[in-house]
Amino acid sequence: MDEQNTQTGHARRPSGRDAKRAARAARAGASIPYITRKIPYYEVLSEEGLALMEHNADTILEEIGIDFRDDPEAIEIWKAAGADVKGERVHFARGMCRSLIQRTAPREFTQHARNPARSVVIGGKNTVFAPAYGSPFVRNLDEGRRYARIEDFRNFVKLAYLANSLHHSGGTICEPVDLPVNKRHLDMVYSHLKYSDKAFMGSVTAPERAADSVAMANIVFGEELNDPLTGRPKTTIINLINVNSPMTYDATMLAAAKVYARANQALIITPFILQLVNPGAPVVLGSFASSISMQSGAPTFGTPEPALVLYSMAALARRLGIPFRSGGSLCASKIPDAQAAYESANTLVPTCLAGVNFVLHTAGWLEGGLAMGYEKFVMDADQAGMMHTLLAGVDLSENGQALDAMREVGPGKHFLGCAHTQANFENAFYRSPLADNNSYEQWEAEGSPDMTKRANALWKKQLAEYVLPPMDPAIDEALLDYMARRKAASPDSNV
Amino acid sequence: MDEQNTQTGHARRPSGRDAKRAARAARAGASIPYITRKIPYYEVLSEEGLALMEHNADTILEEIGIDFRDDPEAIEIWKAAGADVKGERVHFARGMCRSLIQRTAPREFTQHARNPARSVVIGGKNTVFAPAYGSPFVRNLDEGRRYARIEDFRNFVKLAYLANSLHHSGGTICEPVDLPVNKRHLDMVYSHLKYSDKAFMGSVTAPERAADSVAMANIVFGEELNDPLTGRPKTTIINLINVNSPMTYDATMLAAAKVYARANQALIITPFILQLVNPGAPVVLGSFASSISMQSGAPTFGTPEPALVLYSMAALARRLGIPFRSGGSLCASKIPDAQAAYESANTLVPTCLAGVNFVLHTAGWLEGGLAMGYEKFVMDADQAGMMHTLLAGVDLSENGQALDAMREVGPGKHFLGCAHTQANFENAFYRSPLADNNSYEQWEAEGSPDMTKRANALWKKQLAEYVLPPMDPAIDEALLDYMARRKAASPDSNV
Repeated sequence: MDEQNTQTGHARRPSGRDAKRAARAARAGASIPYITRKIPYYEVLSEEGLALMEHNADTILEEIGIDFRDDPEAIEIWKAAGADVKGERVHFARGMCRSLIQRTAPREFTQHARNPARSVVIGGKNTVFAPAYGSPFVRNLDEGRRYARIEDFRNFVKLAYLANSLHHSGGTICEPVDLPVNKRHLDMVYSHLKYSDKAFMGSVTAPERAADSVAMANIVFGEELNDPLTGRPKTTIINLINVNSPMTYDATMLAAAKVYARANQALIITPFILQLVNPGAPVVLGSFASSISMQSGAPTFGTPEPALVLYSMAALARRLGIPFRSGGSLCASKIPDAQAAYESANTLVPTCLAGVNFVLHTAGWLEGGLAMGYEKFVMDADQAGMMHTLLAGVDLSENGQALDAMREVGPGKHFLGCAHTQANFENAFYRSPLADNNSYEQWEAEGSPDMTKRANALWKKQLAEYVLPPMDPAIDEALLDYMARRKAASPDSNV
Repeated sequence: MDEQNTQTGHARRPSGRDAKRAARAARAGASIPYITRKIPYYEVLSEEGLALMEHNADTILEEIGIDFRDDPEAIEIWKAAGADVKGERVHFARGMCRSLIQRTAPREFTQHARNPARSVVIGGKNTVFAPAYGSPFVRNLDEGRRYARIEDFRNFVKLAYLANSLHHSGGTICEPVDLPVNKRHLDMVYSHLKYSDKAFMGSVTAPERAADSVAMANIVFGEELNDPLTGRPKTTIINLINVNSPMTYDATMLAAAKVYARANQALIITPFILQLVNPGAPVVLGSFASSISMQSGAPTFGTPEPALVLYSMAALARRLGIPFRSGGSLCASKIPDAQAAYESANTLVPTCLAGVNFVLHTAGWLEGGLAMGYEKFVMDADQAGMMHTLLAGVDLSENGQALDAMREVGPGKHFLGCAHTQANFENAFYRSPLADNNSYEQWEAEGSPDMTKRANALWKKQLAEYVLPPMDPAIDEALLDYMARRKAASPDSNV
């Protein structure tokens, strides 16, 4: 894995040679720190359509405005920037928000991982796959559905660490409801840092929890808190700030966002205010679109309408010039059945073709995000592996053209024994650990297992074989000490 | 349905208004005779890459050549056309095959259905969905897997007739192995003509069976055998001619191809010879690419490599200027589980984005084509319905932009009750008859069914409610009479 790494923050843009090496590694199923696409974006809208959407966004910002609730500081920041403020409602002159972003927000940035070989570059032609986020429940074939515990959280961190196709440890992979609400973020951040060496996400549920996340990351990243390349604090955490649709920011999330932005940590958000709090802070345009059932009002996933939104939003993010977060392996199904798979694939393929840079919810998502599935996790990770091959594109090298094989074999024979096949068969195709391609008779003899059964065996095998990544014991001790002090500082609470 | 039809052969290219109407109908889930795409093609290769592939194809045709086995007439045709013939091996000057096609093969053509409202235009921006083809087995939840019978064949013709999202009745949907090999084509063609009114495919397993297919179609299409628009015999059958990979045509398939080409019926084939047998005969470039398991040699489906081939081949067909057949809902899975669904969606989405014109295997395919699944059929048909919405693209009308809704609702409220939602909710989103989007509690109360269980109920309900499309009793009698005479003319045989 370490040999594969070409991006530890030295270069903002990967070279053509790096991209080729990554493509080769992807075809060979080897681990790469993130994907640099070699295929074009799929554009669903013309220039005219995209310009219309930007025009309408300006109209909404100007005429209707956005509410910033219970945060006088945010209101003052907007006033100082020249926005038209009436109470908590802020109106923006046409183009103002766009120019705020374009003036200072980076087009791409490095999020450092504690293993430098696993740092990720978010933005540009890169795609980073992260696990699903935020489920109160977990599901597996043995126990069905139940509330998530910290043990589940650790298990998913380990599974994401082991997955070649996932580049990121994610954030609140599931809610450890066996821990008090006001302290569980400490255990979650510790789990990411201890059981994985991939980049991770911080807590956003309160400003002091955001501050804890930054403090714990600083313990690990220690001596070199400034990025020598940018002269700014190293970005070691990326954080998910959700806007209340429609058009409203609330106090909790604004406060957490300001903590992270001031520390130069990355935020996924509808982003314009950050560049006033800390110009140049890394920010990712986020979009999470689902259709809804018009009978029940329930969200639906893997349907065609969100795919169209995804293609459109990715193009708008490119025009704006900042990284884009969307998509994943979303589904409404309660179990990892055919519905889950159709819906997940119908989301993940557009995610990749559209050019999403940070893919939250790549693996594990069930039931509209209410449950994190163990089997679903390894099934989705397998699909994410296939996306590496897709994004590596068509191999047009001499070897890829294989004209010699055609000449050697000729009409009416077969290619299995020819020199080209011999030279390429090990790395020729993506190999799924979960798809059954055996004969019907062999499959039947093995007990006719469906994919979920095979996935059940796979995640158990992976957890059994898991080995902890190395960590300096002094750092581990400092983390545990920080947690103990913070836990002792206030009583347990479930708000 | 009849009101929706705008294409019964009067126009080679649909107008912009037609496309809009079709898009509206697609969004509303109504039946349309075929899809006219409103979204761009996805192009995976640059001009340079595509030119390289054409160059290599010319090299193979020139240097290596193609075998035409046991068919002296085909060899004579090539000699007369100026090809370089050595025994059964034919070599072609660079560009010769391309120019043969481009000189006379139509860019798109109408395949007439016995219900003119259901005639399909194959080629251009159009996509036609047809059922899967060629399985010896069927599978359903009640019986598992068993050999297919003519009763299954009829059932699938009925299900395809009932599916709004399928535009075509297909061909050998499954092999009726309870009928003798040399006569079962009569019952298959009769079933398509009798139990559906959509366009269908003829028999290709022997030249006399091809002739039977043409004769039976002529009984139904009766008086008006010439297309007044083209002055040529009406194309009422489309037929699948498989090339023996690599680079070999055998006698059976050449003979069947010549029968159909002379009758001006359409062929899906690697196509160059047809334009010598009957210049102008409709021909579709076919590509069926699968990866293989390098462990076992078994074909694998829904993997990324065939998707890349699909995008590339579609672009090459457009450059050549003839319709393209590929893709579908392919999978290796034996059952309609998550593997089947991931693999099918990973094939069907590229099929649609690439711009495949004739999609064989849209519904029912299991086990690499060995089994036709009842549940899989209705699940895939549902997915094909979603593709209608995807291909209809983003609605950029005033209503689609919905700025009034934004103005009415404003920050912090919700859109469910607003005027725009009230006006649009019935047709707003594609509605899946099979996806479960209910609450977990409701789903559990219903017995926690997976998608396959729901699909099992759906196909049974559809078959129970099926109503035969009207047919002139004299035509039916003539068809039955023709079949009886042909069956009496030779003993049953299983070759």
